Amino acid sequence: MINISSEQIYQLEKQYRISLINSLVGYKSLNLLGTASNEGITNLCIISSAFHLGANPPLLGIVIRPEREQNSTLTNIKSTGHYTLNNVLPEWYMQAHQTSAYYPSDVSEFDTCGFQKLYTNHFKAPFVKQSTIRIGLELREIIDLEINGTTILIGEIVHILANDDMIAADGTVDHVKAKTMSVAGLDAYFLPQAVGRLAYAKPGIEPHELNKSY
Amino acid sequence: MINISSEQIYQLEKQYRISLINSLVGYKSLNLLGTASNEGITNLCIISSAFHLGANPPLLGIVIRPEREQNSTLTNIKSTGHYTLNNVLPEWYMQAHQTSAYYPSDVSEFDTCGFQKLYTNHFKAPFVKQSTIRIGLELREIIDLEINGTTILIGEIVHILANDDMIAADGTVDHVKAKTMSVAGLDAYFLPQAVGRLAYAKPGIEPHELNKSY
Repeated sequence: MINISSEQIYQLEKQYRISLINSLVGYKSLNLLGTASNEGITNLCIISSAFHLGANPPLLGIVIRPEREQNSTLTNIKSTGHYTLNNVLPEWYMQAHQTSAYYPSDVSEFDTCGFQKLYTNHFKAPFVKQSTIRIGLELREIIDLEINGTTILIGEIVHILANDDMIAADGTVDHVKAKTMSVAGLDAYFLPQAVGRLAYAKPGIEPHELNKSY
Repeated sequence: MINISSEQIYQLEKQYRISLINSLVGYKSLNLLGTASNEGITNLCIISSAFHLGANPPLLGIVIRPEREQNSTLTNIKSTGHYTLNNVLPEWYMQAHQTSAYYPSDVSEFDTCGFQKLYTNHFKAPFVKQSTIRIGLELREIIDLEINGTTILIGEIVHILANDDMIAADGTVDHVKAKTMSVAGLDAYFLPQAVGRLAYAKPGIEPHELNKSY
């Protein structure tokens, strides 16, 4: 067994440390984050930092990194209050990865990486047409973390645009049918396979599978 | 296509809404969170809220939910400052799920759900022996969110205990070899399959695979 201590972590070569630390936590949710400026210039970037915060109110958090300052995402979200998260599919995951390149702020990653925009009602941020699960969020809270200069954005889910048959009878999204991908670390992409759905756990009751694949 | 608006989300049946909102964001990292009280009573619970915050300093966030008050996890972390995250494997994922049951605070989920404890140096929280990737964290920051009563804990990675051959040459954890599982929503468990590793994205360069599986 390898035992890496705090002092050793700090002595690791920089790129090795970034890859190790970023991949430790396991598989991460993978989404394209869509925004638009007040002038209508759109922006799209791949993120793996979205996390569930609660269902009532329906809230998600995302982490925005400081080195992304040249990226217009944070500016757009602060000025319009709207942003979208869209799942990533195997057919075009390489194009999705390409949105992480540093394009000039007047270039839309929608156009240059080959994504189609989808709008709903008066919502200011564009969704990704090629996705199968799309979430529209309204900014609720900004938490600036002094400890490392990152920003946590908390948004309320105000739109869910899902392709037909992607939501199971009990409300759970069928991500296998939706062809949702996952990522570990910076660049390792995965397509998960269902193992099982388990019943609500209670003391004294043996854990067991639910009688449904979805 | 289904278009669910904010008003409709609030009108959904409670359990349906919880399952839908919790599963929207895609696959989540899956870990067993290990702690101990100052008196040495250990606690273990499955979580899917861990997220990467940054590599320098090496930080992870986790979300603790208010209904978990009877659970000793938060108390233990606040009093000892130490906690562990341990990956979940298919051989015993049902036991891992079982740790989410509400056991009395004097019952250790390590013992009742069949997990062995592993300790290192003077670190106060127990790791899970059956896991292959284990992270030791020291509490750095507590963020109480008024918006829904949850708490975000930010911890610094101070120990990495990995089984042999789980870390690739470039530092990325090989979660396929580690047999790490993922979860979507409350109860749907997955084993991801590798699709590809992609090169660092640059404007004007076509996205392409790295010449390595790991």
